[in-house]
Amino acid sequence: MAKQLTTREQNYSEWYQDLVIKADMAENSAVRGCMVIKPYGFAIWEKMQSALDQMFKDTGHVNAYFPLFIPKSFFSKEAAHIEGFAKECAVVTHYRLKNTPDGKGIEVDPEAKLEEELIVRPTSETIIWNTYRNWIQSYRDLPILCNQWANVVRWEMRTRLFLRTAEFLWQEGHTAHATEKEAREETMKMLDVYGTFAEEFMAMPVLKGVKTANERFAGAIDTFCIEALMQDGKALQAGTSHFLGQNFAKAFDVKFTTKEGVQEHVWATSWGVSTRLIGALIMAHSDDNGLILPPKLAPIQVVIVPIYKNEEQLAQISEVAGKITSELKSKGISVKYDDRDTHKPGWKFSEYELKGVPVRIAIGPRDIENGTVEVARRDTMEKTTYQLMDLSLKIEHLLDKIQQNIYTKALEFRDETTHVADSFDEFKKLLDTKGGFIRAHWDGTTDTELKIKELTKATIRCIPLNEKPEAGKCILTGNPSIQRVVFARAY
Amino acid sequence: MAKQLTTREQNYSEWYQDLVIKADMAENSAVRGCMVIKPYGFAIWEKMQSALDQMFKDTGHVNAYFPLFIPKSFFSKEAAHIEGFAKECAVVTHYRLKNTPDGKGIEVDPEAKLEEELIVRPTSETIIWNTYRNWIQSYRDLPILCNQWANVVRWEMRTRLFLRTAEFLWQEGHTAHATEKEAREETMKMLDVYGTFAEEFMAMPVLKGVKTANERFAGAIDTFCIEALMQDGKALQAGTSHFLGQNFAKAFDVKFTTKEGVQEHVWATSWGVSTRLIGALIMAHSDDNGLILPPKLAPIQVVIVPIYKNEEQLAQISEVAGKITSELKSKGISVKYDDRDTHKPGWKFSEYELKGVPVRIAIGPRDIENGTVEVARRDTMEKTTYQLMDLSLKIEHLLDKIQQNIYTKALEFRDETTHVADSFDEFKKLLDTKGGFIRAHWDGTTDTELKIKELTKATIRCIPLNEKPEAGKCILTGNPSIQRVVFARAY
Repeated sequence: MAKQLTTREQNYSEWYQDLVIKADMAENSAVRGCMVIKPYGFAIWEKMQSALDQMFKDTGHVNAYFPLFIPKSFFSKEAAHIEGFAKECAVVTHYRLKNTPDGKGIEVDPEAKLEEELIVRPTSETIIWNTYRNWIQSYRDLPILCNQWANVVRWEMRTRLFLRTAEFLWQEGHTAHATEKEAREETMKMLDVYGTFAEEFMAMPVLKGVKTANERFAGAIDTFCIEALMQDGKALQAGTSHFLGQNFAKAFDVKFTTKEGVQEHVWATSWGVSTRLIGALIMAHSDDNGLILPPKLAPIQVVIVPIYKNEEQLAQISEVAGKITSELKSKGISVKYDDRDTHKPGWKFSEYELKGVPVRIAIGPRDIENGTVEVARRDTMEKTTYQLMDLSLKIEHLLDKIQQNIYTKALEFRDETTHVADSFDEFKKLLDTKGGFIRAHWDGTTDTELKIKELTKATIRCIPLNEKPEAGKCILTGNPSIQRVVFARAY
Repeated sequence: MAKQLTTREQNYSEWYQDLVIKADMAENSAVRGCMVIKPYGFAIWEKMQSALDQMFKDTGHVNAYFPLFIPKSFFSKEAAHIEGFAKECAVVTHYRLKNTPDGKGIEVDPEAKLEEELIVRPTSETIIWNTYRNWIQSYRDLPILCNQWANVVRWEMRTRLFLRTAEFLWQEGHTAHATEKEAREETMKMLDVYGTFAEEFMAMPVLKGVKTANERFAGAIDTFCIEALMQDGKALQAGTSHFLGQNFAKAFDVKFTTKEGVQEHVWATSWGVSTRLIGALIMAHSDDNGLILPPKLAPIQVVIVPIYKNEEQLAQISEVAGKITSELKSKGISVKYDDRDTHKPGWKFSEYELKGVPVRIAIGPRDIENGTVEVARRDTMEKTTYQLMDLSLKIEHLLDKIQQNIYTKALEFRDETTHVADSFDEFKKLLDTKGGFIRAHWDGTTDTELKIKELTKATIRCIPLNEKPEAGKCILTGNPSIQRVVFARAY
């Protein structure tokens, strides 16, 4: 077969790259670091967007749109933010092109130089808080609960499709509150939304935790995250929710009058997830035959393939397939009937395995005689013969079961691949032999964190939430620690 | 009242600007020419997107995403396209910022200059056709029917919220076909989709026609358009659908093998509508009290306002309002119950008039006694007392009626404001006294078209489709003409 993938065993990284390309998810473009998201990949993003957008609206948020460009000077206003963001950015310096003197090409018009350079947004806190200044006068104007679906650009030197690209798509929530308490509640609420989305839609278990100072978002007081584990034992940060305190309100002079008539700075949060989630989805579940997609995010949930030798057989099969299709559609299940005569059934089977269609129904002449169909699950590759009676109900249940099974499998993998290390030797050995999450004691200093990273390439993924304190000694320095943190090598 | 608008009579242009700001639709940002689309304005865009996206999918299209940046050299590849697009563009020349020597600010790092400048897409034909080259080998790969929802940038010198901004949101469809016939059919199909959307959702009648060579999209063989008429008698181009022939396929060397084994260039179309439609929607229907929104695009379709003197009355009203709300929601109607105690009913009435909420229900103590509510229509400002029995059904019908009435009113206005001119004097007089669409004979030359524009500021909006030929003489030159064309001053 032309579409044979590199196996995960052979080379996990090549398997991923291969799969993204061969399953028609995305490809590199002519612009360094920027990807083209192909229709099949984009259909998954649309499903993600639709589910998340509903969850945002159900929690009281509204969408808005802020400019793509940010004046350079805005980045200098929040001290920590400069360090974190105003570095590898796309910079617009001119606003006009003109014909070259020979008339054959075009060149930048030196006379059309901007007075102040514009930065293509790497994230929008600055331009949004500059805008909020005019929206907020009194406590009556609060809270503001805005979200934006947008493209952002960070000039990454080493890029990988979906996981790290110069331009990517994301959503960024930016909320403004009258009190610290309310802003902190919002931060945690959105972390929970992300956790629920990852587990219920992506079928991907996640650890919730808080980042160390070193891994914190530039400008945040606290950064909370959801961390997932990929099949190669590496961690992937799947979403972040930041409590920004009054940092941006102070930088952009955003104050409000309280009920008591006092002027105070506004409290802020921001939170985002991106097309990186598509990379996570692929790496969390797929196998050497191709994608394994959870039914809730699969662009096609059921494919029907006819197996026939002549037109008469095809006509009979198509009639049955038509009935099945309309029954499934009436249940909101997306179905494709692939009766193309340009490809053989075997080729189609491989194709839909590669594309991760959760359920395949094959119908042949014998099925027509017996009133049956053959149903194959993508997650387990099991085939079963089903009677036509109540088929759509059975398929509906099967899709639920597949969704659940993919999650359970990923959860079991994560549990098996989470270890405890009590010494640095044990820590290094676990990293090199098993990978995964390693729960270990750390003395709480950035120095130690960086030293461990330098020695092992492992980072602290998070300080897990809701764990009971456990006294211990830092694996590197032996200094006292009050809680285990979670280390891993990460994407 | 603080929110009093400039009237249309006083100054149409200021009325528009005033309304956009006061109805919380959008505002100018800190970046010249770029707007902030506020939640209320964005909610209308989301409704437009949702309806259009469904229409695109129903006609077989899929969404994808292509890079924001286009290498400068791509614009030189299609000769006409250079002239039209590679001019007023945002140009990215550098990819890094660094701290200024004093450590207080940031500056562009001169060492991080791009080898080739990148243009922020003003439209995506070039990068997409460069991508399609790798997607298309044989007739089996055709057609490709992709659409993209994206932001684009055209460095406009004079901007107006929604109507003309440096950055705007739009969708751009880019399709690839094996034959000219199929591409031409696609061009007309999408023009029809736009026409249907404008009339059925925006309640805005549109003329369908083809552009003159002078007004054609840069790189197109034919540009088709829908043209709407605003209340000040100026025209607004609301959407375009281009038949691109083989121009981009030739520029980017995109060939396919036909069934017969011959190599041929691929045929192309592109088509788009943008956030400009929001400006059109506002200008087509609204009045001196504020927005008038067709129910199908109104973010809030029904608002319920309680009128009460004490808590007991409010409790009774809220109970009734709650029932009405859930009945309306079960019919898919969006409802807001505004029981804020910070504002008086009169203030709320003005606010929802300004925001164009199609139906307002007021409930007072006497209504509770009588089992009635007061229903006010935004389009006609009529108030009627309704019995509670079957109220949701009556509201549903009323919304349909309002949608229809807004359309009919706009259609009548357009018919009244469409004139025929048979001499240049008559033409000028009509333009200066009545505005609107003027149907007149034109000799078919760009020279004459430009001369008329220079003398009157009127342009040929389109050569209308499906009209029977009518011989006549050009209003300017007296040269023979075979069909009347439609002139207007335009946005």
